[in-house]
Amino acid sequence: MATTPAVKLRVFSLNCWGIRYLSQHCSQRYEMIGQLLKEEGHDLALLQEVWSEKDYLFLKKTLAHSHPYTHYFKSGVIGSGLAVFSKHKILDTFLYRYSINGYPYMAHHGDWFGGKAVGMVIVDICGLAVHAYVTHLHAEYCREKDSYLPHRVVQAWELQHFVRHTSGCADLVILGGDLNMHPRDLGNRLLLSYTGLRDSYAEAEKFEGCEDGITLIAENPFINKKELEPFENGIRIDYILFKQGLSRVSVKCESLSTTTGSVPGKPFPYSDHEALSAVLLLQSEEGGGPRPQRCSAEPDPGLVDIVNEARTEVKVGLHHAERMRGTVARMGMMGLALLLVELAIALVPWLAHSTEHAFPRASFYLLGALSFTTLLLTALLYIFYSTQVKTLQGAEDQMRLAVTGLQEKLQKRSQTQPVEQGRAQGEPASTSANSP
Amino acid sequence: MATTPAVKLRVFSLNCWGIRYLSQHCSQRYEMIGQLLKEEGHDLALLQEVWSEKDYLFLKKTLAHSHPYTHYFKSGVIGSGLAVFSKHKILDTFLYRYSINGYPYMAHHGDWFGGKAVGMVIVDICGLAVHAYVTHLHAEYCREKDSYLPHRVVQAWELQHFVRHTSGCADLVILGGDLNMHPRDLGNRLLLSYTGLRDSYAEAEKFEGCEDGITLIAENPFINKKELEPFENGIRIDYILFKQGLSRVSVKCESLSTTTGSVPGKPFPYSDHEALSAVLLLQSEEGGGPRPQRCSAEPDPGLVDIVNEARTEVKVGLHHAERMRGTVARMGMMGLALLLVELAIALVPWLAHSTEHAFPRASFYLLGALSFTTLLLTALLYIFYSTQVKTLQGAEDQMRLAVTGLQEKLQKRSQTQPVEQGRAQGEPASTSANSP
Repeated sequence: MATTPAVKLRVFSLNCWGIRYLSQHCSQRYEMIGQLLKEEGHDLALLQEVWSEKDYLFLKKTLAHSHPYTHYFKSGVIGSGLAVFSKHKILDTFLYRYSINGYPYMAHHGDWFGGKAVGMVIVDICGLAVHAYVTHLHAEYCREKDSYLPHRVVQAWELQHFVRHTSGCADLVILGGDLNMHPRDLGNRLLLSYTGLRDSYAEAEKFEGCEDGITLIAENPFINKKELEPFENGIRIDYILFKQGLSRVSVKCESLSTTTGSVPGKPFPYSDHEALSAVLLLQSEEGGGPRPQRCSAEPDPGLVDIVNEARTEVKVGLHHAERMRGTVARMGMMGLALLLVELAIALVPWLAHSTEHAFPRASFYLLGALSFTTLLLTALLYIFYSTQVKTLQGAEDQMRLAVTGLQEKLQKRSQTQPVEQGRAQGEPASTSANSP
Repeated sequence: MATTPAVKLRVFSLNCWGIRYLSQHCSQRYEMIGQLLKEEGHDLALLQEVWSEKDYLFLKKTLAHSHPYTHYFKSGVIGSGLAVFSKHKILDTFLYRYSINGYPYMAHHGDWFGGKAVGMVIVDICGLAVHAYVTHLHAEYCREKDSYLPHRVVQAWELQHFVRHTSGCADLVILGGDLNMHPRDLGNRLLLSYTGLRDSYAEAEKFEGCEDGITLIAENPFINKKELEPFENGIRIDYILFKQGLSRVSVKCESLSTTTGSVPGKPFPYSDHEALSAVLLLQSEEGGGPRPQRCSAEPDPGLVDIVNEARTEVKVGLHHAERMRGTVARMGMMGLALLLVELAIALVPWLAHSTEHAFPRASFYLLGALSFTTLLLTALLYIFYSTQVKTLQGAEDQMRLAVTGLQEKLQKRSQTQPVEQGRAQGEPASTSANSP
């Protein structure tokens, strides 16, 4: 039973949609967000898509008294967009850039330019080491034909790795962000199963806000309803996740609320996403010593299936990257061949000491420029796809190792404790070994 | 006092210099390395510069019985070159790619193409979770005018972050690799001071091998002696570092040995670097429970100075990246201006319905191609330098936060325990607050 008074921790998460000159009413919305955070005084505010440092500095100034501790994570060409504002002292920060994140030539999607990452801050709250993570995964532009799915799966894989391996010393783990994944999407299952993080929407004793906890709602005036189809009401892709850590402090989610597409007395909402506010209740357990724990995941037959499913997706991405690399290599060879032919054509009159050209000059130079540009671009794309191939191969290797490890553990468990396990888990443990 | 028998752990580290078609006697040397590892049967072999996957697969096959557990880390365009061979089960792996790593246009240096990284494997040795790290930092090509120094400092900064935050659950931490830093170099001091890792060369009860533990020696036939100047005998840039972790297991280095530039009965050595072999002795301490620990660094006045020194280096790198970005932006504008002028020249006869050209055709098209290529290349370089600026700014932000945190801790300590501290540390703690 509890022995000391509970500590209430209020956590806020919002994708601010802060693309200067492109996002509507950007500066007015930042004023509203700053005002909200100042008034509400959450312990931790985890923000995404704060793309401009000027906007971050505006928020920093606005929240100088309410949230004196802050960190802005810099990454990629235009930044990671991730920012943390805290009422409590930030002891340390660490950033992990996802190794795969879309394509630079898909400039209109823009994800590649914002170096998508997960930022960690270690915050001291009442003597507890709280590891808070803020992240934003690659967007999903077309659910039916999602060419970015392997990228997002690898990002979720790296995210679970990062959270698991860096939260060894934590008393409490909190993750907030725009995961761009529906609750039952592969990457989300991978993340939750591996890390043991709990979804505040599913765990909250009291919920207030949009139906089904959706955070991208049809009523939001900044949303193009067509993009939400076939989900008429909207989708849930923003999350606050949490789990207890090393010390004997239990945590539960007292309440969760979302904004609902409009702000009373204001002409527009805070963002195109809805904001999340969670109240976590920390309670010291009896026997104050540290709880021994390991970073490795507990074996679970379901997890084997999830990792295998992720492996399949990564393989799809790998085949695509290899195919694209082959295509650009062939195009590059064609560019090179054309350049060599041009060179030969140029050499013929020179060798024959003739002033006549075998080819109209304009076409000759235009073709030369074209073949040179082709060669240059394909060389760059070849390098780009080679790094993608390496990254996807690396992720697949790790997943294969994980599956083998999980299967061995499960097999060992089923051999040594077949009866106890069956009783404890309510299902026969031997099913694990038959996973694909 | 110890209660259980000690466990001996033998660790091997070697930069294999495995650039196919460029490194001399590559395949023969891999055969020798494979033979050595098979015969010696180290518990852990941490290899760098295994650039070709074929060579890794050859080693994997050779060591299939002696080292059944292995992992090859894939990253960058041609791979990270990092490989681990283990006699003990590898439970988990994780790779962190350094966010800054040279320049792609310095292709003859090649570092950018090998995605330099730190790989972690979690190995189960006699029930202990051993976190073993293998890494290879950016090379130093000219010590007097080392333009890569800020890159290496940021890599060392990220390395200490990665080790510190991912070793929270470890019973033992081992790091092996080619750090490309001399023992007293800034990055090395940063790494050792922050993580608490101990240098096996300094700690070994018994040492055998090259004088001063050097690993790049003048006698090695693959070494260009001129490159070692002014260090006539050679330099020490390869390390095996270690520290104890969570559990009550103490660790000491019983012995360390290096190869000495030649292999008896063979015409050439294993590599251009010397190999390191350390014997670590693990001993259970009394009271088997876990030792509570935190990931944050202990405040130390010396550490403040080191981080400040690192900040200065990062700022130098930042100014260089910003200057380069400005230069390419100006060049890009010139390319664009030239392209617009060309367009105007092309439009004049067209608008005047004339067939005469105002400019010789050949020069016209060549100039067009030149300005277009300039525009394209400067755009790419602008993107590249922008990511460098963001990364360096991010590292500098983190360092500033670290210095502030350390200074506050030191100030608090000096205020609360001025007398005890002075006695314990043998120097007045108040000096810390005066750090630059």
